Amino acid sequence: MRTIAVTLAYDGTRFVGWQRQPAGQSIQELLESALAAIQQREVRVAGAGRTDAGVHATGQVASFPFAHAMPCDVLTRALNARLPEDVRVLRADERAEGFHARYSGTSKRYRYVVTTSAVPDPFDARYAWHVPGDVDVERMASALASLAGRHDFAAFCGAGSHVATTERTLFDASCRAIAPDSAASWRPAASSAPRVVIDLRGDGFLRHMVRNIVGTLVEIGKGRWRVSRMAEVLEGRDRRDAGPTAPPQGLCLVEVGYGDPPGVE
Amino acid sequence: MRTIAVTLAYDGTRFVGWQRQPAGQSIQELLESALAAIQQREVRVAGAGRTDAGVHATGQVASFPFAHAMPCDVLTRALNARLPEDVRVLRADERAEGFHARYSGTSKRYRYVVTTSAVPDPFDARYAWHVPGDVDVERMASALASLAGRHDFAAFCGAGSHVATTERTLFDASCRAIAPDSAASWRPAASSAPRVVIDLRGDGFLRHMVRNIVGTLVEIGKGRWRVSRMAEVLEGRDRRDAGPTAPPQGLCLVEVGYGDPPGVE
Repeated sequence: MRTIAVTLAYDGTRFVGWQRQPAGQSIQELLESALAAIQQREVRVAGAGRTDAGVHATGQVASFPFAHAMPCDVLTRALNARLPEDVRVLRADERAEGFHARYSGTSKRYRYVVTTSAVPDPFDARYAWHVPGDVDVERMASALASLAGRHDFAAFCGAGSHVATTERTLFDASCRAIAPDSAASWRPAASSAPRVVIDLRGDGFLRHMVRNIVGTLVEIGKGRWRVSRMAEVLEGRDRRDAGPTAPPQGLCLVEVGYGDPPGVE
Repeated sequence: MRTIAVTLAYDGTRFVGWQRQPAGQSIQELLESALAAIQQREVRVAGAGRTDAGVHATGQVASFPFAHAMPCDVLTRALNARLPEDVRVLRADERAEGFHARYSGTSKRYRYVVTTSAVPDPFDARYAWHVPGDVDVERMASALASLAGRHDFAAFCGAGSHVATTERTLFDASCRAIAPDSAASWRPAASSAPRVVIDLRGDGFLRHMVRNIVGTLVEIGKGRWRVSRMAEVLEGRDRRDAGPTAPPQGLCLVEVGYGDPPGVE
């Protein structure tokens, strides 16, 4: 039996999330159905990140045992022929036996986008959280810096999560404004207001961790909370002290890393 | 009676186009319904460009008579409160009596995006034409250059059009590759392949003119047709000589110009 890992991109808008659910369509279910049709046997796939309903991915990874002898590029095309156009397999790779998309991973990178224009850009509606009015990106970046490194992130862990430990390491955490540049962007954009982009890379993320961090950052960016509150919330380990959970559509799983754990930069 | 012009952005994916149709939802109808609810009387709006089903806009302009005294910024908010989130009024402006979004316009700018990656990027599916494999952007740019200036564009005019003349002036016509740059783009992108971006600005466009030009450009970019064929097709004024009509989702009405007609750059 071969072990295959596929890298997937999907627009999460119309899905219940990565993981199979009793009702609604999941990416996992679509991938498993496509694989079952190809190799004529049921298969369970393991996903690196359990993205929630509405959350996107440009670099999700899923691994599975594969009985068929077809080359990886043929498998990529066969899967894409069976998947809807908002879910694409970008590549398939042969992996060593024992490889597991989730447990073999050493880092994940997530991006969250906040838009602040007075009128929401219709082309951002599916891919960003619209928070009209000024936010202070410098304040947000300062607050975010206090989260870098190894910490107990219990304060940012959503309810209903069952994990052995809430300790995680953030290797990088950045928050910056990107002004639309029509010379560098090919997609339609109606608003010229800068977008606030939050990039986080860590060895693992708790349930809703990115979205709870972003919800807290926006309170600080709006000036409603002090910059130092981020560190205090982290220290207190109480979910009730953090900000609201930012909505799913601003979030994207960008990349999953394997190999040696990267150090804090 | 005041004359108001609104600037609109919309994701055209789920609409039948700008213009009212017997079946399906149009942007015109949505805007007229929202205005009727605000001023308690029926109104007809004039749109600058009749975008087709699936075509987007970041700078469509529509004008209408308006009886109500509300300030323009209040009108903007009132319209947005009644429009779906994939249609947004970016601004409303008072215009001189006699202003007409279409007839007063002196230029329009359209953008068309072609993607060429082996696997189509799911985040481009609604906003680009996917043409897998290599295209020669230099050849396309050379061919496109022959269309700049004033010409009879009958060869690129779609069937079912009733216009007095098929002469139009293209002020600018450019074709270039934009490589995704994660530092400059905030939206998810799964493919790192360059996107081919075609920008056209002219004093007016015939039905399907941009899409027929792009269909011809792709034949040339693929090397199936010679570069000089673009000038020959133009010269021949026969629609059957041009390439296929490129699909609507790659097209966006970017801007409508008013005031002095701009010269050829």
